[in-house]
Amino acid sequence: TMVMVTRMVMSRNVLMMVSDDAGLEMKAYGNTVCKTPHLDELAKRSTVFTRAFTSVSSCSPSRSAILTGLPTHQNGMYGLHQGYHHFNSFDDVRSLPGIVAAAGVRTGLVGKKHVGPDSVYPFDFAHTEETESIMQVGRNITRIRQLVRQFLDTNNTRPFFLYVGFHDPHRCGHTHPEYGQFCEKFGNGEPGMGTIPDWHPVTYDPAQVVVPYFVQDTPAAREDLAAQYTTLSRLDQGVGLMMAELASAGHLNDTLVVYTSDNGIPFPAGRTNLYDPGLVEPLLVSSPQHSASWGNTSTILASHLDLTPTVLEWLQVSYPNYTIINKRQPAVLTGKSLLPYLDHGQPDAGDPKPSLDVSKQELGVWLQDVGIIRSEPAVYASHDLHEVTMYYPMRAIRTPSYKLIHNLNYKMPFPIDQDFYLSPVFQDILNRTRASLPLPWYKTLRNYYYRDEWELYDLHFDPDEKFNVAHKGRYQDVLGELRARLWAWQNQTYDPWLCGPGAVLQDSGSYATHHACLPLYNGL
Amino acid sequence: TMVMVTRMVMSRNVLMMVSDDAGLEMKAYGNTVCKTPHLDELAKRSTVFTRAFTSVSSCSPSRSAILTGLPTHQNGMYGLHQGYHHFNSFDDVRSLPGIVAAAGVRTGLVGKKHVGPDSVYPFDFAHTEETESIMQVGRNITRIRQLVRQFLDTNNTRPFFLYVGFHDPHRCGHTHPEYGQFCEKFGNGEPGMGTIPDWHPVTYDPAQVVVPYFVQDTPAAREDLAAQYTTLSRLDQGVGLMMAELASAGHLNDTLVVYTSDNGIPFPAGRTNLYDPGLVEPLLVSSPQHSASWGNTSTILASHLDLTPTVLEWLQVSYPNYTIINKRQPAVLTGKSLLPYLDHGQPDAGDPKPSLDVSKQELGVWLQDVGIIRSEPAVYASHDLHEVTMYYPMRAIRTPSYKLIHNLNYKMPFPIDQDFYLSPVFQDILNRTRASLPLPWYKTLRNYYYRDEWELYDLHFDPDEKFNVAHKGRYQDVLGELRARLWAWQNQTYDPWLCGPGAVLQDSGSYATHHACLPLYNGL
Ligand SMILES: [Ca+2]
Ligand SMILES: [Ca+2]
Ligand SMILES: [Mg+2]
Ligand SMILES: [Mg+2]
Repeated sequence: TMVMVTRMVMSRNVLMMVSDDAGLEMKAYGNTVCKTPHLDELAKRSTVFTRAFTSVSSCSPSRSAILTGLPTHQNGMYGLHQGYHHFNSFDDVRSLPGIVAAAGVRTGLVGKKHVGPDSVYPFDFAHTEETESIMQVGRNITRIRQLVRQFLDTNNTRPFFLYVGFHDPHRCGHTHPEYGQFCEKFGNGEPGMGTIPDWHPVTYDPAQVVVPYFVQDTPAAREDLAAQYTTLSRLDQGVGLMMAELASAGHLNDTLVVYTSDNGIPFPAGRTNLYDPGLVEPLLVSSPQHSASWGNTSTILASHLDLTPTVLEWLQVSYPNYTIINKRQPAVLTGKSLLPYLDHGQPDAGDPKPSLDVSKQELGVWLQDVGIIRSEPAVYASHDLHEVTMYYPMRAIRTPSYKLIHNLNYKMPFPIDQDFYLSPVFQDILNRTRASLPLPWYKTLRNYYYRDEWELYDLHFDPDEKFNVAHKGRYQDVLGELRARLWAWQNQTYDPWLCGPGAVLQDSGSYATHHACLPLYNGL
Repeated sequence: TMVMVTRMVMSRNVLMMVSDDAGLEMKAYGNTVCKTPHLDELAKRSTVFTRAFTSVSSCSPSRSAILTGLPTHQNGMYGLHQGYHHFNSFDDVRSLPGIVAAAGVRTGLVGKKHVGPDSVYPFDFAHTEETESIMQVGRNITRIRQLVRQFLDTNNTRPFFLYVGFHDPHRCGHTHPEYGQFCEKFGNGEPGMGTIPDWHPVTYDPAQVVVPYFVQDTPAAREDLAAQYTTLSRLDQGVGLMMAELASAGHLNDTLVVYTSDNGIPFPAGRTNLYDPGLVEPLLVSSPQHSASWGNTSTILASHLDLTPTVLEWLQVSYPNYTIINKRQPAVLTGKSLLPYLDHGQPDAGDPKPSLDVSKQELGVWLQDVGIIRSEPAVYASHDLHEVTMYYPMRAIRTPSYKLIHNLNYKMPFPIDQDFYLSPVFQDILNRTRASLPLPWYKTLRNYYYRDEWELYDLHFDPDEKFNVAHKGRYQDVLGELRARLWAWQNQTYDPWLCGPGAVLQDSGSYATHHACLPLYNGL
């Protein structure tokens, strides 16, 4: 299916940079302590999306959603790709590199890949953890620069799509504790740490870091954050190198540059959660065709599911018509291109076109009980597993005013991943809880583990998502609307978990044309 | 890795027949109502294993365990292979067809495959659901006969391993209700049902069927069983055809014939459960070299994990040395060859050699609390998911006297699969429960859904596994021993779920050489 097309898409390239577990620790998002001059510079030539969300707060699932435009439950990457988790997208899913290659675009991947199978995510040029050390292709910014130069130098007249997967600022206390909690010592020139010539480490006084509301303000947590900041300096300088390479290759003015991160920061309520600390992402979109609005912010709700439509529109490539597995209906992108939003800085909070247009019939049973008010735009999130032992399916809809989360395995405690478990910040929570020491945190360990099936947060009054109002009488209309819209999106994206946990999805045989949720009477 | 070996393994072939969801409905196992003359005939030239168990009661996981000798959690096939479940074994796992092919054996697969990836399960000759209709290659016994003849006719001088995967007597009310609940009408010559020339359907009066103790004795359940019996007649006649083909190809006296089924029958407590109705399998092993003991029964505990060692010993092929994923230790088979047990009919109940030899150090913490009595042999079972939405990991050890089950997701209701949900027998349970009608069943719907974390059954007094004695004081020594042995087996087989649900497994970084279960303090 690699077809060379003679109609060339001229002078429209893409550089997508995806960091690993990074958050909003930069000036453009209000953090003035963490020094990120290169990201600040990129922000000045970008539209800064201040309400951007991942579609799933887990590495491989998120990267699969970024590259396919389809949520985890629709593309098949239900959890982590590596090791004994070994999740993969469905063989018949189509991803950005494959789609644009078929339209004549040259594709490259440097750094963390973390998705599969190879046939679904084909890159012409690939230097990843599958072929080299992730420390080298993901954290050694000098090595990354060399590889990117190699890709750009050998570029021919075809447009390119280059995806750079920084492994920073992912934790490494779990796999490489010798380099520190965030590999903040890797390549810093100290004895045994090696040298990364292009990196000039920045260190921080733990007393100076910004402690987010979802992290306890303790010495252990502050040290953890200080280490994270140091690693972010490597990421930041890596971003700077990428921009310099783009400039010296002469592609600064014909390349759409996107910077984002895959999932929430590895702190409580962050990665693996659908609370905002897990969902919120930095998102800088720098278009050389939109320089008039550079430096502006956009408050529209943006999703990682929007990135595939954005890149496709930029490259003027259509999304293909095809079906996934045996499903009768074609794969349909539920995201939107962000290019129209680059034109107007500081736009209204309201997204002018909801991404779903749902008729009453499609909504089914829920709609009969509630009055639907399509007042607000929304983004959606979907989580199944992270590690294969961490089954905790969640579905969420977020509007500017509300967040609704459906926890399907809610009677079991929220699972903790191997990496986060060993982190100083989580060990501190465990230790203080067990010793009954003061824990200046916004939750207790117990209510972090045990969650209600439905969580509804009123973000205007409760931006920190502390008070579940799903059972309050005056929120029942909102609850009904959001449940209906979430359910419609799950339907549209062929969610296998559509009917859980109280019913069974029937979608074959007598139910092939009319899918149904049949009740289990299982007490849920 | 397909290396032709000049030392030929002469005149030692294997025919392995695996039925789909079949149980003990034949004379050799005491059922005199269901007519299975061809299986009876095979039993007369076999050792009949009366205590044989699957290692997991789910189709793809079980077939992966049969073909690799490794339990589901070790080979990576954590759930169903087809559709949006799309589980697969790890790329570096070695399976029977690949191992024996490397030793010069020709391999064939006719019928249901249901495992992947192809590279792990390579067959020289393959006619499966991946290339043809499963109804044709799995239920049309005339078509199956033709394909098997084709394989045998083109056989050269090399030994062969032929695997026939009957799709009978799997339910089909879920996918093909037009053919009846068990496809018992498919090919029966009635209008619209088509014809299978070699099949002579046998029908049953629902009043005459044997209702097992785990099925309610109601008209709906009896009709369901009667349909199952009719489908079993197609399977039985298919087995007869296979034996006739083997004879006419001149291979009756140089071929080891194995008949078993993949998992428990699709009735309550059967398929997807680790209760005995889910685990118990028919197992006939017919060796032309052991004709003196044909027709004997063996009461040793046999496991599907024993089949790979059995076939390898028969074909005189060694299990290769290799490691899985990044694990430091090689893959090790925990099953045993059954060939030694063919020599002596009616052997003692005790297995002379326990499959594990565990030192006190290896057993770790549990051993400190209990006095281990290695009095009884054991088999092990391991279940993770069935459908991808049906997460319910269980681990079990079964001895002649006891069954211990560890339910890891026990706070959630036991999940019900799409197929079983629509079955008359389950609908009858649902309907009678909801209507408060008499339900002559050995459980209630509620206690079927909600299970204790640890279930211990004393099989001498309670063969039907009705009374969980895990919390009874006088069973604490037994509980301790079985937990220790189960834990040791999970360790030996690199179980990712080793530490669940109350702890996190750490197996990298500082824990790379000393794996540890670190407590979550999550209230479990
Ligand atoms: Ca990540
Ligand atoms: Ca089966
Ligand atoms: Mg992030
Ligand atoms: Mg069976």
